[in-house]
Amino acid sequence: MLRGMFRLEAQVEFLLTCDRLKAVTRTTLLHSGERAENSAEHSWHLALMALTLGEYALPGTNLSRVVELLILHDLVEVHAGDVHFDQSEAGQEQQARREAEAAAWLFGQLPPDQRDIFGAAWQEFEARQSPEARFARALHTLLPMLLTWGPGAVGSAAHPELTFQRVQALKQPALAEFPELWELVRQTAARAVTEGIMPG
Amino acid sequence: MLRGMFRLEAQVEFLLTCDRLKAVTRTTLLHSGERAENSAEHSWHLALMALTLGEYALPGTNLSRVVELLILHDLVEVHAGDVHFDQSEAGQEQQARREAEAAAWLFGQLPPDQRDIFGAAWQEFEARQSPEARFARALHTLLPMLLTWGPGAVGSAAHPELTFQRVQALKQPALAEFPELWELVRQTAARAVTEGIMPG
Repeated sequence: MLRGMFRLEAQVEFLLTCDRLKAVTRTTLLHSGERAENSAEHSWHLALMALTLGEYALPGTNLSRVVELLILHDLVEVHAGDVHFDQSEAGQEQQARREAEAAAWLFGQLPPDQRDIFGAAWQEFEARQSPEARFARALHTLLPMLLTWGPGAVGSAAHPELTFQRVQALKQPALAEFPELWELVRQTAARAVTEGIMPG
Repeated sequence: MLRGMFRLEAQVEFLLTCDRLKAVTRTTLLHSGERAENSAEHSWHLALMALTLGEYALPGTNLSRVVELLILHDLVEVHAGDVHFDQSEAGQEQQARREAEAAAWLFGQLPPDQRDIFGAAWQEFEARQSPEARFARALHTLLPMLLTWGPGAVGSAAHPELTFQRVQALKQPALAEFPELWELVRQTAARAVTEGIMPG
């Protein structure tokens, strides 16, 4: 019993550390435009998105695993912070190093068996290889675009460099293998241009 | 293809409506005490909690289903708002009616097959009968307590009526069937009293 309670105490400490993800600010605004979203609510929205759009995944995709990956994918930001998706290659490498350190530190708060399970899920998402990680990544690439330029959006004046062509080039690698979602990207970008909230 | 895109458009509208959950404020503060948490980040934290504490569920519990229930459980607040767990019976009945209306409105934005699936998940959580709903409810009852009185908490001066005995009476129905979690409730409450952040 004592061993059990020590194990549970470690898990509780981990969960309370993870509470800090609610204070990590992202570059994406809420759909209302009222404030920047944080990484915790962003992770929830992605998990909901996986439950809602699961039919567009590749055949045989384990959607429960997609949800797991999305719940866990941003946890390392508790330590490492968020970065904009269009940053330089050097910045990305430095960020990857910081995130690996953060993952070792954070998941190391868990009992060893769970440290390994959570770490493997995070690495699976980062590797973008499994059907589950690829679908998770596609949703992750799609959602900020819907919040910023989807129906009812107020648009974003903060990124005038994101033209119709540039957005498509950035979104294509993660989304092109999902035909319905890729068509949605094209339609969303086209409408944002028509409505004047994205440069043509 | 057109039918497919109409379906996807309805799903996107639903997901953007759900973005409003990020603006629904709860009575629980972040563990840091810095601000009230919102229902979207709260739902994420509960889903993470289910992944972390799954070993304490009843044997045979489908943890993926627990995660689903927790991701969806607060969605009706987009329309109906949050309430404190210690409210009157009359207030609870009115809230239940408002939530049922909100569920019909919100899930009605989805294609009919998904409206029924999401609605059934929400009702399963509310009914507190299945092993999955009971574990989800236990976590839901436990987490605010950990945020408010767990290790490192700043405590809450807002609820002086929540004494050691009162908290245990309130938490007992949802948690007593999970012995490790119930022991955690008792230890957490006892320590909060010792540390002077909960009346004895």
